[in-house]
Amino acid sequence: MTVVSKSGATTTGSIAVEPVVTGLPGHTIVLGDTVPLALVSGQRLGPFTVAYQTYGSLNANRSNAILVCHALSGDQFAIDPHPITGKPGWWETVIGSGLPIDIDRYFVICINVLGGCMGTAGPKDINPQTGKRFGLDFPIITITDMVAAQKLVIDHLGIDKLFCVTGGSMGAMQVLEWASRYPQRVFCAIPIAGAARHSAQNIAFHEVGRQAIMADPNWHGGNYYDHAEQPHRGLAVARMAAHITYLSDSALHQKFGRELQDRTDVSYGFDADFQIESYLRHQGSTFVERFDANSYLYMTRAMDYFDLAAEHEAILANAFEDSQVRFCLISFTSDWLFPTTESRQIVHALNAVAASVSFVEIETDAGHDAFLLDEPEFFGILSGFLAGAAELRGLDGDASGRTGRETS
Amino acid sequence: MTVVSKSGATTTGSIAVEPVVTGLPGHTIVLGDTVPLALVSGQRLGPFTVAYQTYGSLNANRSNAILVCHALSGDQFAIDPHPITGKPGWWETVIGSGLPIDIDRYFVICINVLGGCMGTAGPKDINPQTGKRFGLDFPIITITDMVAAQKLVIDHLGIDKLFCVTGGSMGAMQVLEWASRYPQRVFCAIPIAGAARHSAQNIAFHEVGRQAIMADPNWHGGNYYDHAEQPHRGLAVARMAAHITYLSDSALHQKFGRELQDRTDVSYGFDADFQIESYLRHQGSTFVERFDANSYLYMTRAMDYFDLAAEHEAILANAFEDSQVRFCLISFTSDWLFPTTESRQIVHALNAVAASVSFVEIETDAGHDAFLLDEPEFFGILSGFLAGAAELRGLDGDASGRTGRETS
Repeated sequence: MTVVSKSGATTTGSIAVEPVVTGLPGHTIVLGDTVPLALVSGQRLGPFTVAYQTYGSLNANRSNAILVCHALSGDQFAIDPHPITGKPGWWETVIGSGLPIDIDRYFVICINVLGGCMGTAGPKDINPQTGKRFGLDFPIITITDMVAAQKLVIDHLGIDKLFCVTGGSMGAMQVLEWASRYPQRVFCAIPIAGAARHSAQNIAFHEVGRQAIMADPNWHGGNYYDHAEQPHRGLAVARMAAHITYLSDSALHQKFGRELQDRTDVSYGFDADFQIESYLRHQGSTFVERFDANSYLYMTRAMDYFDLAAEHEAILANAFEDSQVRFCLISFTSDWLFPTTESRQIVHALNAVAASVSFVEIETDAGHDAFLLDEPEFFGILSGFLAGAAELRGLDGDASGRTGRETS
Repeated sequence: MTVVSKSGATTTGSIAVEPVVTGLPGHTIVLGDTVPLALVSGQRLGPFTVAYQTYGSLNANRSNAILVCHALSGDQFAIDPHPITGKPGWWETVIGSGLPIDIDRYFVICINVLGGCMGTAGPKDINPQTGKRFGLDFPIITITDMVAAQKLVIDHLGIDKLFCVTGGSMGAMQVLEWASRYPQRVFCAIPIAGAARHSAQNIAFHEVGRQAIMADPNWHGGNYYDHAEQPHRGLAVARMAAHITYLSDSALHQKFGRELQDRTDVSYGFDADFQIESYLRHQGSTFVERFDANSYLYMTRAMDYFDLAAEHEAILANAFEDSQVRFCLISFTSDWLFPTTESRQIVHALNAVAASVSFVEIETDAGHDAFLLDEPEFFGILSGFLAGAAELRGLDGDASGRTGRETS
């Protein structure tokens, strides 16, 4: 099979992807143009587009780059107003001038993951072979594939070694994959609220979300793009179910309790009597404005499939053998989706191979979403670890990097 | 407004309910025929049918009756094969000859709750005023209303004082309501895996389930009964989401882990690759055979609205003032839906009014559903507490009850 992409490049036996989302702020790059990307599923992808955003300046040594990996519902717009919703970026508390990930000092890259819906190739793009949207014909994407595509972007930027790779939740899975698969390309790694494999309970919650989407008749087996109605109700239910898992019981209790919404007594009906109900409905209805239902299926599946030990004779430590990467793992006490025990297992594996690892469990009621919220202790840990690593790396505090020794 | 019921009885300003589910095994009774039941919502119900099941024999003193209150997805068929699915009763491990609730000794009553779908009046019944199914025109039912209807059944059976009221989950809410509202009618009470009010997180999970049902176009605003297609997909998603909350993370991990279903490698697709996915899908698809989607909405709402303290100047202890009821509360360590803290709050309230209360937290990995499973320690506690209470009550070990002193 020979595929001729729009750009005129020819690849053999490869799935070409023609983007439908264009004109977004930030950068795009066409990858797999000459050598397609070999996906874990056995399929080959290329040419395909990847969209990314950068903040700050790359120093002359190209040694101050931090790759920020986004979570399931995130995208590359970490600190910009979101181009669709206009809302603030998802990590504007962390990345910025004078913030823990200081863009006066570091060059920050954030890449929309493969399978995503904000400019990087995903199921809503066009299959040039048919002229139609992929839908479920888009190949299944794994965390390994996401990271392989990111590596091509980092290659393109001429960055031999990332100073740091960090991210929370699905982002943490990518961080672990980076550190395991490309240890020579990572100086330090900060997986936050993550796990080395997706648990049965987490797979279960994802399956509920997928079934909610697939139960929506507007989903049309994934081929909804040309219909007037989109599977918004199913996607909203999926988002609502997921959103509960991002918060802690006590956070919900403190934030909402049994408080009523705009009324003094219950309605004795099915209106959103309780504030928690309105809040959840709002979370569902706003999510569908910016997220593609099929991408949601692909993202959840990538997380479900993630099992780093399974790729290494079922021994997690083998994933990090002889690693020179400096690790800092962060978990949150009230996170029941990716509980501290998951991070601790990674720490044990890293200890078993005598890797450099620090681990902090942060006391908070905020649940899994703590990494997206105002958590001073978390910010302090991030800043402190990065400062120490920057000194080791010979970054001297400004973005030029022209002075100071460099280690690898 | 004057309503003439099928039976010819006349009530004024009352909602009459004509049952559609008939011919089930067990008993039915028409209530509210002369005096309608005043619901918490302000509406009045009657005449309406209540279906119930009994096991064992009522002794001559009518002092050996145990009322078993079922949970959200349960019904009156506690130990019979289910008349629709043929599956064993939901509490056949607990109720039976020689079992903790020994039907050779006690007379067991289990009543399908108001708003249910197994013979007791609910949204799938017919409104004689219109000749059509109620759907969402059925009045909202509270835990208080369920218990008020049960009390009418107990009156009808000529039982002045129940020896015991027990039940898990939503059943425990009914137990607490019984003990609080009709303390003179209850000798002892065993609320299992319950709470005195539904938490924000639990309301949130219920709201997801309701939204999943309402998002199903076959739901038709609740008027699906005359359509060929029923809102089974929405109800299945609701059941799947709920089912996760009934199990513990570690139970899911031990039972399923990341084991694959009938395959040696993942499918790189959206089939049920993992055993947990097949299991959940099975839970969803079997539930819809026996449960009415609108009843699911009404049951979840009743639980959401439950807040025993709110009915007593926000002081839970006031709900049990001067109570002579002997309480035994049971919780399970791995139950995160109705965690031990919820039971402990009730214990504190009971202690504050010097009520007779024992409390046991049972160590188990089984999660909320532990009360439905084979838990020897749980069985031991049940048997032991009942034996002690039976002695106090002067029940002498056989069903005749003709000898032995009786206390009240």
